Amino acid sequence: VSVPVPFFHAGERAEEAAWLAALNAATDAFEVRPGRDMRAEDLARTEVAIVANPDPADLARLARLRWVQSLWAGVERLVGELQGVGIVRLVDPQLGRTMAEAVLAWVLYLHRDMPRYAAQQRARIWRPHEPVPASGRTVGILGLGHLGRCAAERLRANGFAVAGWSRTPKEAMAFETYAGAQGLADLLGRADIAVVLLPLTADTRGLLDAARLGQMKPGGCLVNFARGPIVDTDALVAALDAGRLGHAVLDVFATEPLPPGDPLWSHDRITVLPHISAPTHMTTAAGIVAANIAEFLKDGTIPETVDRGRGY
Amino acid sequence: VSVPVPFFHAGERAEEAAWLAALNAATDAFEVRPGRDMRAEDLARTEVAIVANPDPADLARLARLRWVQSLWAGVERLVGELQGVGIVRLVDPQLGRTMAEAVLAWVLYLHRDMPRYAAQQRARIWRPHEPVPASGRTVGILGLGHLGRCAAERLRANGFAVAGWSRTPKEAMAFETYAGAQGLADLLGRADIAVVLLPLTADTRGLLDAARLGQMKPGGCLVNFARGPIVDTDALVAALDAGRLGHAVLDVFATEPLPPGDPLWSHDRITVLPHISAPTHMTTAAGIVAANIAEFLKDGTIPETVDRGRGY
Repeated sequence: VSVPVPFFHAGERAEEAAWLAALNAATDAFEVRPGRDMRAEDLARTEVAIVANPDPADLARLARLRWVQSLWAGVERLVGELQGVGIVRLVDPQLGRTMAEAVLAWVLYLHRDMPRYAAQQRARIWRPHEPVPASGRTVGILGLGHLGRCAAERLRANGFAVAGWSRTPKEAMAFETYAGAQGLADLLGRADIAVVLLPLTADTRGLLDAARLGQMKPGGCLVNFARGPIVDTDALVAALDAGRLGHAVLDVFATEPLPPGDPLWSHDRITVLPHISAPTHMTTAAGIVAANIAEFLKDGTIPETVDRGRGY
Repeated sequence: VSVPVPFFHAGERAEEAAWLAALNAATDAFEVRPGRDMRAEDLARTEVAIVANPDPADLARLARLRWVQSLWAGVERLVGELQGVGIVRLVDPQLGRTMAEAVLAWVLYLHRDMPRYAAQQRARIWRPHEPVPASGRTVGILGLGHLGRCAAERLRANGFAVAGWSRTPKEAMAFETYAGAQGLADLLGRADIAVVLLPLTADTRGLLDAARLGQMKPGGCLVNFARGPIVDTDALVAALDAGRLGHAVLDVFATEPLPPGDPLWSHDRITVLPHISAPTHMTTAAGIVAANIAEFLKDGTIPETVDRGRGY
């Protein structure tokens, strides 16, 4: 009989069932079961759990819990709620490819003036605009973790000029990078399109406020594929309304789903997306999660966990 | 004193002036002058002219004309109007890159469901759709000339499955190719997105008629970046209205600009673009044109001309 590993998933039952099937198909080394269906003594004994937006009260019952494996890359809620337990983020090469594709797709959307041509179509206006070569657009990537680096590489392969920013200096990147507070001002002042791929931490919450948005190149565009609270939405709307910035593509919001009454929906310089830039790919993610846990059960190895000081 | 070479440009004077400046900046071997400003004896003597949508009556006055250099890749009007004179199309590597970028941009637009998310935004609906990896989409390229091959390579580099079709079989492509009438049916039946990059000829006029559109994969999408008359617009609208096809991106039309009263403007499954997929890049084009003519003036070499039998 195989070891039961609890799964705590706060979402739709159908999605939970799909994850359970994918996880159990990925391994024979253990059995993934919904936490709520496990006996109290099994829960008290487990040292590892798989989580997707879990209820903290459920995890508090796991007396011997040493680490949790998240099904997502963003773990800001877990960091806040879960003390004394290692948190392992999902690092999925497939996710990197999907995010790189999303960044490329919406950078091309802005680069090739799609919002403007859509507005002209609605007004039945035939008006070509002067093309700009990709090499004439600088895309600034905020956040140079796995996803940021994948996006930067993909943009470079498609001819864009790329520059990156991270909290601390990075070595040996194939493109220009900036770090720290002054570095962010420099990058924002250069980028025609700024793409946010930062984790949400105490440092990044509200990072792109009125002052930072004011440092952006006039007419610049913003893409947020990370977390809503990194951008001050009121300040963004003000900058767009004033014509200081060109357009924003927002895939993430402080409240999701974005409420139907939110004015962002109808802003003609904002493209609203329902958090679709890089959905977790169940099959590859399940394989990675299963391999991590199988290795732990075999020899006690825990994958790299989140640095609580940094928050990611 | 340098040889005068006439330039016949039927368009806005400002654009003509920009071309004249770019062409004359590109060479010292000859001087490009507006045809209307040249003396009759100079016109009667010239063996070459540079043309952009010229008036056939102007060209008829050039008694010794041997060839014309087009500023564009599409030369269907010239082929019809200009007998006994070699026609040289613009083959510009920069144009290939720009077209490849346009094809990638609007393929990603369809691949990542942008029209659907735009409709949802207008209706304030938050609904993510199941993602499909690029490798799960087959893009069919109709036309495997310079532009078609550039587009295919770019799509492959970004993970898409690519197949191509051409009138006659092509050797040694890195992807699957089809040829002839049955081959077109096979390709259309496989492609999730069909991209038209064919020249307009007697064979391709009306090629994508109701019967051919009926061979497309159900739910498939169409991108026309070539010439309007290749696609039967009424049949396309009928296929979209019936839900047989998913969406169309049209950059070219039988009449351009598309008249304000045309119903295509307001069709919610058609994206109308004002012929912007791959505008000629003046600087690189002027350099290529100048080099072609300088070589002819030096040693009489005429670049490869259009095959009138094929029409391109």
